[in-house]
Amino acid sequence: MKAGFVGLGSMGAPMAINLVKAGFPVAGYDVRAEAATAFAAAGGRGAASAAEAARGADALVLMVVAIAQAETILFENGALEALAPDAGVILMATCPPQAVADLARRIEATGRAFVDAPVSGGVVGAREGTLTIMAAAPQATFDRFQPLLAAMGSRLRHVGESAGQGATVKTINQLLCGVHIAAAGEALALARTMGVDPAIVLDIMSGSAATSWMLKDRGPRMIRDNPDVTSAIDIFVKDLGIVLTAGEQAGAATPLARVAHGLFRKASAAGHGAEDDSQIVHVFPTLT
Amino acid sequence: MKAGFVGLGSMGAPMAINLVKAGFPVAGYDVRAEAATAFAAAGGRGAASAAEAARGADALVLMVVAIAQAETILFENGALEALAPDAGVILMATCPPQAVADLARRIEATGRAFVDAPVSGGVVGAREGTLTIMAAAPQATFDRFQPLLAAMGSRLRHVGESAGQGATVKTINQLLCGVHIAAAGEALALARTMGVDPAIVLDIMSGSAATSWMLKDRGPRMIRDNPDVTSAIDIFVKDLGIVLTAGEQAGAATPLARVAHGLFRKASAAGHGAEDDSQIVHVFPTLT
Repeated sequence: MKAGFVGLGSMGAPMAINLVKAGFPVAGYDVRAEAATAFAAAGGRGAASAAEAARGADALVLMVVAIAQAETILFENGALEALAPDAGVILMATCPPQAVADLARRIEATGRAFVDAPVSGGVVGAREGTLTIMAAAPQATFDRFQPLLAAMGSRLRHVGESAGQGATVKTINQLLCGVHIAAAGEALALARTMGVDPAIVLDIMSGSAATSWMLKDRGPRMIRDNPDVTSAIDIFVKDLGIVLTAGEQAGAATPLARVAHGLFRKASAAGHGAEDDSQIVHVFPTLT
Repeated sequence: MKAGFVGLGSMGAPMAINLVKAGFPVAGYDVRAEAATAFAAAGGRGAASAAEAARGADALVLMVVAIAQAETILFENGALEALAPDAGVILMATCPPQAVADLARRIEATGRAFVDAPVSGGVVGAREGTLTIMAAAPQATFDRFQPLLAAMGSRLRHVGESAGQGATVKTINQLLCGVHIAAAGEALALARTMGVDPAIVLDIMSGSAATSWMLKDRGPRMIRDNPDVTSAIDIFVKDLGIVLTAGEQAGAATPLARVAHGLFRKASAAGHGAEDDSQIVHVFPTLT
């Protein structure tokens, strides 16, 4: 199975390299030419355009920033028609469920297959091939692309047969992640205001029923000055925005996600959008 | 060290029994006479009143429902003056930090010591002696009562020297617990509304960065009909109320706790206050 890969960023590059390591011939493209060069140095084939990456491929993996980019690549830049006639498009970016379902219809209208397959697990998971992949596609399509997906994520789950269901699971994942980060910030900011050492609180909470994966991961960075950026505040402005839109379209209330989104937006509006998302902790003292 | 123990409920009874097992002579009292009888059958000494439980004791442990009960027991029912002159009062219930600090002052004015020592870990932790105890007291007082506390909880932490700091840590614990339960409900309710199997979502989220202790504990009961009651919705109406009051008194914003409190209150107002707190999941479809 010959693959094209578009989007060789911090997630995409290691994912594409894992495909190469698994023995798939992969042509990779990124808007930053140096990313394709680095991919070629790592054993892949660098492509000069998305259409070139797609040419004759059986599968085109898209690990782009947003669904608008996927649409441009497929329909305006010629990547879809460059694919083999029975190829599949595998969208792995975090996108709104309804938009994913719409995109699937347009792709399937050309006779090609579509897999809605967003991921969770971050850069570490991408590098180590341990990503969680939430894949939605008809069973036969899922079975066909299963080896390719399994090369990128050891936690591959078939969550449904309809495009948009993978995006829905990822949306819910981001709801919990975003709310948990904001809750950790609310808790540690409250500790500081009430005169209890946040490090003691973090230590106790990390081992009690109050713990979360995010508390343990982001908490230490919340009580440290100038931590590294592992994931930016603006990612959750975007992803919680997707949660709210998905909830509205489905007629479902998401009151905690709404508050968390407001907190990330407030941090971003104050100029902190590119900072580590743990820095949401500093928004709370500015609220009254 | 001779101990009195007031409040032999689902938490207090196993805690008092662990004191007995550790070799402390303990006189136990509860408003339900049968609780004191059961305690006597388990090796303790049953007392007919709080003052009788306190008489001549070096330590009086209070595991009551609310701080008003502690005040009544100590000042109106004669338990404080029944204690040895240099005894200590150990308050282990979940109470508002400011009220705990006020209570400490009144007790210390009589020459007696006070330990602010709420717990986390539930009935299982109480029974197995693995509770987390968040103890605040001057160092010498903490050292003096350390053996007694350690007999009830293997995770004993000295969080500060001022009464109210233990209650503050517990308050923050409950903030995270309450928000995480509500977030799990919001996530699983959204899954159902959007047409994805909540069991698949729960399985994936439990192993991803989206996980929390509460998601893994309450999540399975959210997707099951009529689960057992392990902790009631009304507990979080009370405890998140304490969070909001503490935040207001400290001038700290707690926007996520506020929303979560509103959700638990709404469930309680609809008649579900005595149900398992996992049943908060059913509130979301009623919001619009």
